[in-house]
Amino acid sequence: MRIEVPLAQASRLLNHGPTVLVSSQHGNQRNLMAAAWAMPLDFKPPKVAVVIDRQTLTRRLIEASGVFALSVPTLAMADLCTTVGSVSGQSLIDQGREDKFGRFGIDQFSGPVLGLPLPAQAIAWLECRVLPDFGVFDAYDLLPGEVVSAWADAEVYRDGRWHFEAADPRRSIHHVGGGVYFTLGEMLHTRNLDAS
Amino acid sequence: MRIEVPLAQASRLLNHGPTVLVSSQHGNQRNLMAAAWAMPLDFKPPKVAVVIDRQTLTRRLIEASGVFALSVPTLAMADLCTTVGSVSGQSLIDQGREDKFGRFGIDQFSGPVLGLPLPAQAIAWLECRVLPDFGVFDAYDLLPGEVVSAWADAEVYRDGRWHFEAADPRRSIHHVGGGVYFTLGEMLHTRNLDAS
Repeated sequence: MRIEVPLAQASRLLNHGPTVLVSSQHGNQRNLMAAAWAMPLDFKPPKVAVVIDRQTLTRRLIEASGVFALSVPTLAMADLCTTVGSVSGQSLIDQGREDKFGRFGIDQFSGPVLGLPLPAQAIAWLECRVLPDFGVFDAYDLLPGEVVSAWADAEVYRDGRWHFEAADPRRSIHHVGGGVYFTLGEMLHTRNLDAS
Repeated sequence: MRIEVPLAQASRLLNHGPTVLVSSQHGNQRNLMAAAWAMPLDFKPPKVAVVIDRQTLTRRLIEASGVFALSVPTLAMADLCTTVGSVSGQSLIDQGREDKFGRFGIDQFSGPVLGLPLPAQAIAWLECRVLPDFGVFDAYDLLPGEVVSAWADAEVYRDGRWHFEAADPRRSIHHVGGGVYFTLGEMLHTRNLDAS
């Protein structure tokens, strides 16, 4: 079940540094790619930043539409992440093939605020509007966005934070390179050692 | 044993989204804080970005010196991360107390290029120079740095990537909020599903 996450808590969905999927759409074209370089930027209003190479179809669609979405994929989606991170959306267009959603059978639903195509099997979804300051980040291929909707899978996100069980195939994944990921492992409660 | 990581591969140390420790130093003052919002920005030259609140001693020391370092702490350092992320370096100065390195008994060594105080028990260390473009990021509290030295613990980083064993206390940690972290779990090899 998908639950809405208060916008002021949207950063919690990305705080642990998962690899994300980036949704984009402009006119009749849509795309999905993987990105490891994404993080929260601010709490209120909630902002995120993601690095998207200027050679990509995703970048072109985002610049044309002014919107994008980040989703948090799972262990069960790991091969899919590598696939959408390897296959060029533009090359599918050039070859007259269907887009990645069709080609790889990715279930999607329309984002509640911006209508972006979101992968249904993910565990969190953030729709974002590109911030007007985008120009100052352009040289870094860094896209800053304001989060306008945030949702999560209630089975793994509740009471304001992630609760991944050890064997859950819905744990997030963290790319270390070359198609190799680590999943999350055990949860760890810590304490402030400064007793005084 | 610490091994030097080629600068062109420095991004691999942060690619999986770990929580980091931020070292800063200016004149006689030095500090260490935790940050979850850090990521690579580019491969060559290697760049990183980290969000550092403008109210912090760390931010003041970095702006004064033009340099900072990011280290990747471990499961064994989790309480320490929460502690240096909770205690204000400025308040220790105001109270005439020793700095966090002394107060919490943090072993440190001097970074090889910039001489920054690096926590010896971490598993990766990146010394960075603040990029001249810093001004354009200022409104976002986002510090962009060029990586000028990159080192890792050869026990867990070799052949160009992380190799965390399941029970290793040197696994990286990923903050989900409120002093709760997840460690990394199992390694996962994936494949591109696009066979054609």
